[in-house]
Amino acid sequence: MILFRKVAILGAGLLGASLGKALKKFGAAQSVEVWSRSESTREKCLRQAWCDKVSETPQQCVKDADLVVLCATINAIEEHMRLIAPALKGGAIVTDVGSTKAHLCSVAEDAFKDSAGVFVGSHPMAGSEKSGLEYASGELFVGRPCFITPAAGAGDKVFDAAKKLDELWRALGSDTRTITPDLHDRIVARISHLPHILAANLSALTGEQPDAADLAFAASSGFRDTTRVAGGSPDMWRSIISTNKTEILKALADYRGKIDSFIKALDESDFEMTNSVLEAGRKFRNGLDAK
Amino acid sequence: MILFRKVAILGAGLLGASLGKALKKFGAAQSVEVWSRSESTREKCLRQAWCDKVSETPQQCVKDADLVVLCATINAIEEHMRLIAPALKGGAIVTDVGSTKAHLCSVAEDAFKDSAGVFVGSHPMAGSEKSGLEYASGELFVGRPCFITPAAGAGDKVFDAAKKLDELWRALGSDTRTITPDLHDRIVARISHLPHILAANLSALTGEQPDAADLAFAASSGFRDTTRVAGGSPDMWRSIISTNKTEILKALADYRGKIDSFIKALDESDFEMTNSVLEAGRKFRNGLDAK
Repeated sequence: MILFRKVAILGAGLLGASLGKALKKFGAAQSVEVWSRSESTREKCLRQAWCDKVSETPQQCVKDADLVVLCATINAIEEHMRLIAPALKGGAIVTDVGSTKAHLCSVAEDAFKDSAGVFVGSHPMAGSEKSGLEYASGELFVGRPCFITPAAGAGDKVFDAAKKLDELWRALGSDTRTITPDLHDRIVARISHLPHILAANLSALTGEQPDAADLAFAASSGFRDTTRVAGGSPDMWRSIISTNKTEILKALADYRGKIDSFIKALDESDFEMTNSVLEAGRKFRNGLDAK
Repeated sequence: MILFRKVAILGAGLLGASLGKALKKFGAAQSVEVWSRSESTREKCLRQAWCDKVSETPQQCVKDADLVVLCATINAIEEHMRLIAPALKGGAIVTDVGSTKAHLCSVAEDAFKDSAGVFVGSHPMAGSEKSGLEYASGELFVGRPCFITPAAGAGDKVFDAAKKLDELWRALGSDTRTITPDLHDRIVARISHLPHILAANLSALTGEQPDAADLAFAASSGFRDTTRVAGGSPDMWRSIISTNKTEILKALADYRGKIDSFIKALDESDFEMTNSVLEAGRKFRNGLDAK
């Protein structure tokens, strides 16, 4: 079912290109128009079946669009918000796919205050350690969680837009949930940013050991799974970490407390306690697979 | 090529049954005989094509065996060493598949001091979060690292046995390396036990949050990969942790230091430093895939 006549996508990396593919695959958009900063990416997009038109500027791209999706890095999303706000048609819905929401939603509140369009954040949790148009898939969002984050206390216009976005992401196969930007940031700090930081630190620590080559030899599926996310782009993570610093620090402090207790128990040979952590860890982890 | 005429396998869980299958698949043994504590497992083994005979006791099973492989948990392996030592024929080689080596090798030194057989530890790193005969695969060892751990300063008889075991694990597809039990325990503490403990603590911490259900909803591939090993059996890990306590404590202390530095840098908004950790983590992790 066509939910939006014209969709403008700003940024054609893994998420932007996958969104373009998915919109056509599931018949949710009549026309998909793309802008990318890079000319070579714009040329690649023109050769894609899902892409109807490519624009030279963000402002041109969003003209007459019913939905605009900001698919660049967090810093670029901020910049694009300010560029496109005056160029939107009345009633246009703008969303983004950034991994942190409180910061971006507060930037949006300012950027769109005089705009004819309305902004509501989205976060389809469909990343990958791969990046770029080449890895795009129209099924990227299928079965993945997606948050829609209208600002707390926003008016009817915002909530109507949130409802429309909920329909859209469901149409692309996501499991959606609508929550406040602040609650979103707490959740992703704990379920996405913390695991990423822990994996990166584990991988970095291993790599700086004098016998790193022997450790690499012995790295079997356990180590590889545990550190897989550490293979992703640090640049993308820089802006995630800086825009969700407070919640990440809380999650890290809790984790350090947990590790401290484990170290103390192991040092005292309290294997009942260490085992209880392993049991609790197994219980939560196996519960995820049972879902 | 047949490397051993008769192989006795004590314990028919994932590793024991996979070893039996692999020995026949790669033609490395003429006959495979199994003992298992559980009668129902013994009956299941009898119905397996790779199993030539099932014994009622460990002592019967190892009689006339050219190679004995101890495939139970660490505690049971210790017990089996003492039971079989007097029952071995001259020149029989005994090995095990336990995940820690210094403790087991020192138990073996005592257990086999008057035996006609010779003990050398092995550690095929081919575990899985699955356990049990049902998941056995003759390809389990293919492409996986395997350590052979003759005691430091051992005599010719031990080194000849280590060489024979090296041939065996290679025949089953493993990448082998021969090192001392102490060095082995340092390596696995850092590449296997530390990741397991970190993943279990992350999963346990997440499960004890008041909004654990929302966190489970948002758990995408990143969290699932990072905590996959936490789904494994805590009972197996109890003995691993207790027999490799010293090296695990060293690894955990190093990791805590790393996390402390990261927390400090993030708290001070030193994003150059946090990014350098993510970069180092990516470099080591991607190096593993390039191998």
